Amino acid sequence: MPFKKINLKDKLSKFSEYWSPRIIAEVNDHQFKLVKIKGEFVWHDHKDTDEAFIVLEGSMRIEFQDSILKLSEGEMYVVPKGVLHKTSSENKCKILIVEPNGIVNTGEAGGDLTAANDAWV
Amino acid sequence: MPFKKINLKDKLSKFSEYWSPRIIAEVNDHQFKLVKIKGEFVWHDHKDTDEAFIVLEGSMRIEFQDSILKLSEGEMYVVPKGVLHKTSSENKCKILIVEPNGIVNTGEAGGDLTAANDAWV
Repeated sequence: MPFKKINLKDKLSKFSEYWSPRIIAEVNDHQFKLVKIKGEFVWHDHKDTDEAFIVLEGSMRIEFQDSILKLSEGEMYVVPKGVLHKTSSENKCKILIVEPNGIVNTGEAGGDLTAANDAWV
Repeated sequence: MPFKKINLKDKLSKFSEYWSPRIIAEVNDHQFKLVKIKGEFVWHDHKDTDEAFIVLEGSMRIEFQDSILKLSEGEMYVVPKGVLHKTSSENKCKILIVEPNGIVNTGEAGGDLTAANDAWV
């Protein structure tokens, strides 16, 4: 049995870039990714998949077309597929994302914040 | 936008039974479940799916045929599909599980600890 237990804080300490998701585990066709955010992301959606956010440290906002959701440490939210959203955080926030393999962080919106979708940590 | 943000501690406060997973969210065909454990579970596997464990509070063990993995708060592990395992915890431990919809906690092993696979909290 190959033991690859994953310590979230340890993994978070291994990278510092914002808006740059790092894969830490796979469960079937879904992946667990850590991401650090600060500032504002871009408006985008994911046409074919839901996207789960779990706040590990700090707090964040998820803006929708008609409202804004505030999420704090220990809270999670699932953005349904096809729903336009924009994440942001005034201060540094550390997040765990669960979504299918191969998802691009900016969806089809593109732009400077588009990150690699296959970076492990 | 219907806001169903999920506070993990709040959800954990809403049930007390051990070995009785409660669904808190769905991401595509996968579910997030909270479970409280204490004592020893039964040997089982899941033939068709991996199973992710994230320890939220306390510590647990996952026993395999040739070794035992210890997991503490903030650590996670993915049991690959088809791998026999038995979870246990000397003291109370609170866990987040991610696995596909409809999975039965005891796999095909059955027995008294078999819980409903469709209970939300």
